[in-house]
Amino acid sequence: MTTIRDVAKKAGVSVATVSRFLNGSGYVSADAAKAVTSAVDELKYELNPVARSLNTKQSNLIGLILPDITNPFFPELARAVEDVALTYGYTVVLCNSDENPEKEKNYLNTLKKKYIAGFIVTSNQLDAPHYANMALPIVALDRAINDKIPTVSSNNREGAAMGTNALLERGCKNILFLRGPNELNPANERYQGFMDAIEASGAKYHVVTCPFHFSESQKITDEFLKAHKEIDGIFASSDVSAAGALKAAVTLGIKVPEQLQIVGFDGIAMGEMLSPGLSTVAQDVYKMGAIATRVLIKRIENQPVDQHFYEVPVQLKLRGTTKGVAE
Amino acid sequence: MTTIRDVAKKAGVSVATVSRFLNGSGYVSADAAKAVTSAVDELKYELNPVARSLNTKQSNLIGLILPDITNPFFPELARAVEDVALTYGYTVVLCNSDENPEKEKNYLNTLKKKYIAGFIVTSNQLDAPHYANMALPIVALDRAINDKIPTVSSNNREGAAMGTNALLERGCKNILFLRGPNELNPANERYQGFMDAIEASGAKYHVVTCPFHFSESQKITDEFLKAHKEIDGIFASSDVSAAGALKAAVTLGIKVPEQLQIVGFDGIAMGEMLSPGLSTVAQDVYKMGAIATRVLIKRIENQPVDQHFYEVPVQLKLRGTTKGVAE
Repeated sequence: MTTIRDVAKKAGVSVATVSRFLNGSGYVSADAAKAVTSAVDELKYELNPVARSLNTKQSNLIGLILPDITNPFFPELARAVEDVALTYGYTVVLCNSDENPEKEKNYLNTLKKKYIAGFIVTSNQLDAPHYANMALPIVALDRAINDKIPTVSSNNREGAAMGTNALLERGCKNILFLRGPNELNPANERYQGFMDAIEASGAKYHVVTCPFHFSESQKITDEFLKAHKEIDGIFASSDVSAAGALKAAVTLGIKVPEQLQIVGFDGIAMGEMLSPGLSTVAQDVYKMGAIATRVLIKRIENQPVDQHFYEVPVQLKLRGTTKGVAE
Repeated sequence: MTTIRDVAKKAGVSVATVSRFLNGSGYVSADAAKAVTSAVDELKYELNPVARSLNTKQSNLIGLILPDITNPFFPELARAVEDVALTYGYTVVLCNSDENPEKEKNYLNTLKKKYIAGFIVTSNQLDAPHYANMALPIVALDRAINDKIPTVSSNNREGAAMGTNALLERGCKNILFLRGPNELNPANERYQGFMDAIEASGAKYHVVTCPFHFSESQKITDEFLKAHKEIDGIFASSDVSAAGALKAAVTLGIKVPEQLQIVGFDGIAMGEMLSPGLSTVAQDVYKMGAIATRVLIKRIENQPVDQHFYEVPVQLKLRGTTKGVAE
């Protein structure tokens, strides 16, 4: 195996010079740099990456902290992060936090000791000190962490207004909004977007808080629809909740979209598998993950980052749960 | 910061002895070991994990190579691997291979240089030399790699016979089997299981090869059902294919389960969200991931592994696409 000594000999410089050059850790003359580069090239010398991470305190590992990969919103995000990371020579460590601050802290500490290069984090621990005081580059995905950390998210508020208007334009007069959990930023922004649209319309509405969970959403909708037979539209703050609402309606024998129209939010693949297919405000999840990874790598590599906040546009996808599309 | 020198001084032994002890790389007397342990404890000395991985060529990183995390079968598997790994102090690097041998090889090489401790692999590159000649511990998940590599999978053949019998017992006389891709071991085992049950029954049947892909499966089923109106049962080799078949049937106005009963294979969460809910042969995906991780860590830590092949039992989950359950 080629060693650093072989490179130094070939280049006609000292081992220390080769080391300084390869680790970017001190002054090397232009001539020496050129000689080392040719020697590395010629000898096909590969710097041991673990030794390198020890010297530069960087290991080309990115930590991806998300609540739970089995929540259907996250696999596509993870996929985008991994695809982009790979392009830049980074690999991704997967961390499921279950929204548990202790688990998040534990991951941050464990991975810092492995000289992780940076983190992409989806968390609602908005102002937790373990993020605020972090020296390593972080990018927040989906949910803002704090003002100091670059964030990538969808235009949730506008998107929710779009989804609500899709129901209003198709004749809904009495809309149930399945609002997401109060502690989640995106859920609050979507609530604001719903309120923007519904208050401008003068239509009747109800707001019920509902976790992003299928069978909980089914149960809540079932009870609500039994007590409020006048409901003719449901806007759900997530596709999983919308799927629960659709199942409740179908089970009660309510015809979708004839008697009741439904719109979700997310755009996960499952939506098209339902019958009828779920109309939804689709996030560009892959793009969100890709931007977050690119921004993180720029920060890791000390390149300028032009923006602090990235808002990725959503898109209305109409399928069979709203009128006018047979699918 | 406490250094290895401080530990040596406190323990009254040489730095080399401390190093040998901490890295398990040579003989240390019982007295010295005791003294070093107390000194490490008292000084709260933390061995630098990157330095350690350099010395022991092990970094407590596990590589998880799977085709695509956005395929709904894999998130739960990844979750199980990460949960169990964390318990044993390992972290998981996520690698999407897209079933591309070049990408797999690239990951193996990149991660070996990071002194990855071992790999869990879901691949159909059964006998690829980059696996066969690998010095590091590997465990194969779902699809067997080769005879030398421990494998964890479901009892696919029995499971497929169970699924087929569920249709036969509920009166199906003319069954369409949506067979999975020929190059996948599990798909072939499920085909054998279907054949075992159908040939024993004397019922009529058709076999159509179909990728584990929703809209492809929908299209194939749609065409088949239009040409074969006598079909009264569909057994699909995956839940995603079964979801496509269900959508095709509903779109054609065929009543499920009254006119056509459907059973899938996998047990992914999406099944219960469909209307009617999808009857399926459910794999214990989490358990498969957990066993694979435990076996891999045993191999990494040179503990005895009692079995070479682990077959995790499947379970029939009847929902609304078969008769007798209203859901």
